[in-house]
Formats: sequence, C-alpha cells, structure tokens
Amino acid sequence: MGKTRLEAFSDGVIAIIITIMVLELKVPHDPTFRALIPLWPILMSYVLSFIYVGIYWNNHHHMLHAVEEVGGGVLWANLHLLFWLSLIPFVTAWTGENHFETGPTVAYGVVLFMCAMAYSLLVNRLIHHGKKNAALAEAIGDDRKGKISVVLYLAGIGLAWLQPWLGFLAYACVAVMWLIPDRRIEKKVVEENEKEEAGEGADK
Amino acid sequence: MGKTRLEAFSDGVIAIIITIMVLELKVPHDPTFRALIPLWPILMSYVLSFIYVGIYWNNHHHMLHAVEEVGGGVLWANLHLLFWLSLIPFVTAWTGENHFETGPTVAYGVVLFMCAMAYSLLVNRLIHHGKKNAALAEAIGDDRKGKISVVLYLAGIGLAWLQPWLGFLAYACVAVMWLIPDRRIEKKVVEENEKEEAGEGADK
Amino acid sequence: MGKTRLEAFSDGVIAIIITIMVLELKVPHDPTFRALIPLWPILMSYVLSFIYVGIYWNNHHHMLHAVEEVGGGVLWANLHLLFWLSLIPFVTAWTGENHFETGPTVAYGVVLFMCAMAYSLLVNRLIHHGKKNAALAEAIGDDRKGKISVVLYLAGIGLAWLQPWLGFLAYACVAVMWLIPDRRIEKKVVEENEKEEAGEGADK
Amino acid sequence: MGKTRLEAFSDGVIAIIITIMVLELKVPHDPTFRALIPLWPILMSYVLSFIYVGIYWNNHHHMLHAVEEVGGGVLWANLHLLFWLSLIPFVTAWTGENHFETGPTVAYGVVLFMCAMAYSLLVNRLIHHGKKNAALAEAIGDDRKGKISVVLYLAGIGLAWLQPWLGFLAYACVAVMWLIPDRRIEKKVVEENEKEEAGEGADK
Repeated sequence: MGKTRLEAFSDGVIAIIITIMVLELKVPHDPTFRALIPLWPILMSYVLSFIYVGIYWNNHHHMLHAVEEVGGGVLWANLHLLFWLSLIPFVTAWTGENHFETGPTVAYGVVLFMCAMAYSLLVNRLIHHGKKNAALAEAIGDDRKGKISVVLYLAGIGLAWLQPWLGFLAYACVAVMWLIPDRRIEKKVVEENEKEEAGEGADK
Repeated sequence: MGKTRLEAFSDGVIAIIITIMVLELKVPHDPTFRALIPLWPILMSYVLSFIYVGIYWNNHHHMLHAVEEVGGGVLWANLHLLFWLSLIPFVTAWTGENHFETGPTVAYGVVLFMCAMAYSLLVNRLIHHGKKNAALAEAIGDDRKGKISVVLYLAGIGLAWLQPWLGFLAYACVAVMWLIPDRRIEKKVVEENEKEEAGEGADK
Repeated sequence: MGKTRLEAFSDGVIAIIITIMVLELKVPHDPTFRALIPLWPILMSYVLSFIYVGIYWNNHHHMLHAVEEVGGGVLWANLHLLFWLSLIPFVTAWTGENHFETGPTVAYGVVLFMCAMAYSLLVNRLIHHGKKNAALAEAIGDDRKGKISVVLYLAGIGLAWLQPWLGFLAYACVAVMWLIPDRRIEKKVVEENEKEEAGEGADK
Repeated sequence: MGKTRLEAFSDGVIAIIITIMVLELKVPHDPTFRALIPLWPILMSYVLSFIYVGIYWNNHHHMLHAVEEVGGGVLWANLHLLFWLSLIPFVTAWTGENHFETGPTVAYGVVLFMCAMAYSLLVNRLIHHGKKNAALAEAIGDDRKGKISVVLYLAGIGLAWLQPWLGFLAYACVAVMWLIPDRRIEKKVVEENEKEEAGEGADK
C-alpha cells in the first residue's frame, strides 16, 4: 500500500492544528497597543506550540521519506499521533489564558509526553512493518534525542509543581534540541540513494 | 476520470472534520485540574468521534485503493457521505455538553446510521460504475460487518430511550469492530497484484 | 506551468469553506429534540449551500480536467472565484439565523450571482490562455446552463423582495439543474482520449 | 529531498489562513441591509488580506516551481514564513473591528513587514541550498519589487501614526504592485525549459 494518501491526510490535519491555534488570539476591542499586553502569554504559548507542531511535521516528513510501505496498523498508529497533536491547541489556549500557572503547564507537558509516546509507537510500527523499511530502523538508531525528550518532559511536569516557568523552560529546551532537523534520517537516505545508484552503475 | 482529486478533496474535508471537533473543548477559565472535570463527557465524545471519523477515512482509503475509475455519480455519492460526516462535530458537541442524555444520544446514532447508509451507497455506485472496479465488489463480498453495524446503530438508538449510556455502548461496539481495518479489501488487492505480476511473468 | 498545485490549493479552500459552515449550527444547550426545531432554517440553508459548494467543486474538477495549461492570469481568476465562494458561509449563516427574510435572501442571491460571474471569468481566462485548452472551449459550447443560472439568480433576487421563499425556490432550481454533472465536458474529454488513442493506434 | 510535501503542507496552511478570516465577518442578528453597514471595514480589511495571502501563495507557487531541491533549513524557513502569515487573520480582524485606527494599522504593517522579511529569508535559503536552484537566483535578480515593498511597508507604518488610512493606502499600493505575478520567474523557467529541450534536441 502506498504512503501518499497517508502523507496528504497527515499534512491536512497538522496544517489545521497549526493554524487554528491562532484563533485563540482573541481580537482586543481596544485599538491601543496597551490592549495587546494581556495577549503576550497567549502569543508566547502560540509560538512554542507552533514550533512544536512544526517539529512534528518536519520529523514526520523525514520519517515517511525513509519508509517505503505502510499497512493498516501504521494508519492507526498515525491517527493516534494525530489525536494527541490535536490536543495541543487546547492546552496552548489554557496555558496562555492563565499566564503559565501550574495546572495548564502540567497538562501541556502531559500532552507533549503523549505525543512523544505516540510518535515512538508509530516509528516502531513502521520498522516492524516490513523489510523494506530497514533504512528507517538504521536511521533512528538508539533514538537518543527521543529518550532525552521524554526525560525532559517528565522533568518539566515535575518542575511545574514548584514553579510553572521552570516547566516551560524544560519544554522549550526540547524544542530547541529538535529544531535541528533529524539529520540521521536525512543522511541515511542520502547514503541509501548513493548505494543504490552505485549498485545500478555496477550492474551496467 | 482519475481518482486523485477525489481523494485529495475527501482527505481535506475529513481532516477538517476530525480537527474542528477539538474546538468544542472550550478552554476553562480556571487554571485548576478541577476545572477539567466538567470537560470529561466532551472529551469522551470527542475520542469516540475521532475514532469514528478515523475509521471512515481508513475505510475510504482502502476502498478507493481497490478502485480504478470514478464518474460523475461517484463524486456526488462521495459528497453525500461527506455531508453526513460533517454533522458528526455537531452531534458530538451536543452529546458532550449534555452528559449523554437521550436526545443527543439518539441524534448521534441517527447521524452514524446515515453515514453508514451513505457509505453503502458510495460503495454501490463504485461497483456499478464499470468493470474495472470488479476487485472492489469481490473484496466487499456480502459486507457482513456493514450489516452488523446497521443493526447495532438501530439497537443503540432504541436503547438510548431507556438508558443513554447503553446507546453509547452500542455505538462504541461498532467502533471497536471496525478498528480492525478492512483486511478483506487489503487482502484482495494484494492477491490481484500478485495475479497480475504472475500474469506478466507468464507473458514473458 | 502545471495545474496540480492550483487544484490542490482550490481543493483545500473549497474543503474548508464546505466544512466551516457546520460551525454555524450552534449546539443547543437543551438536550431535548424540541431544542433542534429553531435550528431547521440554519440546517436547510446549510444543505443548500453544501450542495452549491459541491457543485462548484464538481464543475471546477471537470473544468480543470479538460485543461492542460494554466498561467498567472488563471491563478488570479481562480482566487477571485474562491473569494466569492468564501462569502457563502457568511450569507448562509445570515439567512439561517433570520428564517429566510428579504435582506439575507437577496444577499445570498448576490453572492451566488458573483460566484457565477467569477466562474465564467475563470473559464474565459482558461480558454484564452492557449491552444492546448481548446478541448475546454468546445466542451463549454454556448454555456446554456450558465446563462439560465444567471437569469434564475436575478429572478430570485427580484422575487426575494416580494416573498423570500420564492427567491430561495429560484436558487434551489439552479442547484437541481447543476446537480446533473457537466456531461458536456466529461463527454468531450472521453472523445478526445479516444481520438488520441485511435491516432496512436494508427501511427503504429 | 523532494518538494511536493512542502508544497502540500504550505498549500494547506495558506488555504486555512485565507479561509478562516471570513469567520471574523460576524453574522448580524438583524435581517436588514442596514445591519451590514458596520461590517464594511471588516469586509474591506478582509479583501485586502485575501489579496495579500493570495499574492504570497502565488509567489510561493512560482518560487518553488523554479526550485529543484529543498533541505532541512528550507523547511524551517518555510515554517517561519507560515508563522507570520498566520498572524494576518489576527491583525485583519483587529483592524476591521476598530475602523482602521492607528494601533491596528501599525500592527498590520508590522506583520506584513515580517512576512516580507520571512519570504526573503526563504528565497535566500533556497538559493544557497544547492547548485540545482540556480534558476531561481537568476530569476529573482536584484529583487527590486521586494525592496520597494519593504520601503512602502515602513512608510505605511510611519504614516499610520499621522493618519491610519494613509498607512493602508501604502499597504494597498504594495498589493497592487504584486498583483502582477512575478513574470521574472515565470519567464526564466520557460527559458530554462526551452534550453533543455533545445539541448535534448541537439543530443539526438
């Protein structure tokens, strides 16, 4: 089964998730700049969530690039990831409206944690789907970045009880770490292509 | 006529339907976890509807995969299905806001029932469109799962008058039954491909 | 310049237009069926608009199918059409909320009229873009359906001043007339393909 | 790495941005035409923003058409552009609701200015990505139009402090200037294709 429609559907859902968050930036009734000040925590949580959803799209893009076949289980693992991603606008709005208090900060961390789990599950399903996806397995390797992320999410959830902004600092660190795209996969795919081309060259 | 644009448009509409439901999870003004408690029926109905729309996307994907040609009638049968799917966010929100009372539960069941009817109609139009879609007809077979679903929807609508949660139990059963993707079509297509490849091999 | 991305963007916008209209079906706070009664005019205007946007998508699909090349002017003519289509959710909601009174009914007709004008303009730009799009020109012919639609829209706008539901009857007639997909283009394309295949056969 | 998925995702986000702006046209409760009068500034700012987002889509389309390869950095530069575009609905609504007063007009100009900066950055990243994108560099040339736009945005932001409508006049001038699609790229691509075809012809 091809992967194009899976990509198209995921792109659609992620595009909507990343865009509807801006609807939470409620338009102030006042035309003064001062009216924008109460919006800054919403804008800040919007920026962080925009980056997060962007990271997921980016990694999703790289991951499916290294994959050749998808099956029924993969479709569901993908929908499961999209479900958790779809809760990001909710926790973003809750966080922004309450100026980064403990409750919303913890909820934000829990949703990010579940997204990371769902992403791992999807990678796992893809790797075990068939031999054709071996390039992905090699590319992911021991997934050190993924493991550090999970630790930082849990640390952030814990720290949020002490001081909410410490929790957000932890989440922001994960974002910064991932902003560098997953060169492992990119590199692996390039190598594979070179090998194939070399192989084809040798056949001739 | 090709089927790519039909797929693209359906993917777009289904992606929006599945995502705008989250807008009904109204952000609480309170930053405490207790503020999330009144949201649980909305979250639960969101989860069920997310799974349902996911099932329709999944089956729609498998179905069109087994199809080679679409015509004007198919486009309208597809829009008809999308219309009923577009009412899912409405009944989901109504159900969630009223803690699963009789009225919304019945309405939810009626919309699910109409979606199932519209899906059958679409399958029917596809099968009767041309000889090229014969693989689909064989794959669907006697459509036992579809028939059981319709019975369970009607049972759920009836039970909702006695006890709303019994109705939801019936709808949830249908979802669980379909969570296993339609292997009949998947299997059939694989067989067809193998036959074709075998045929091509024999020709050479 | 290719037409795939034009199709993809138009599909996206039309998919969103057709889906966000359902957000106007405001969820009643009451869980009784009686609470649905005040919603019926909104539902009715939703159904009509859903059919209209569906007709535009359908015809847009058929039209671009008969086209081989697009240029800068076509992109803008297409955006112009999408602009008028994007006002359909607004007039739909205004009509539904006011139980089909004169003002909204006239506004609905004006938007439909402008959509028809924008569609004609787009067809015109496509036909004059290049020789490769000649199949479309032949297929459209004298565009009798398009002309009747415009007359009916104007009649509807006039009748709405006397009796709003007469206006809506006129608009509904246009929808029914178009529900039958544009077989002219479909037929023409099929003929072209057959000719080409015959030509290719003769060459061999 | 291919560019199709980048195009698909960008199309999705831009399609949503251009369409959700219409949700700000709040439906009046009155069925009279007089009820539409207070909406005219919102409609006017909607029209201007629709044209702006249309221009960005159009140029994005032309730009990626001249490009053959994209990399990780390009994905992020593209997301950065989409972020600033996603703020257009917010400033549009704020401007419309306040009848073009100084604060919103300045904010509108700042967002347009940032979009222009983000677009330049994306072009820059694409040109420096690899030798394959040389056609784009030649096509963009000294980017006179881009530079004039930036000057006009800054002039508009300054003029808005004196008289908001003067600011809007400046922004509208930029829109008019860009309404003529970027023929430089279009022309360049055509030339490249002709050269390639000529080259292929010569090889035979």
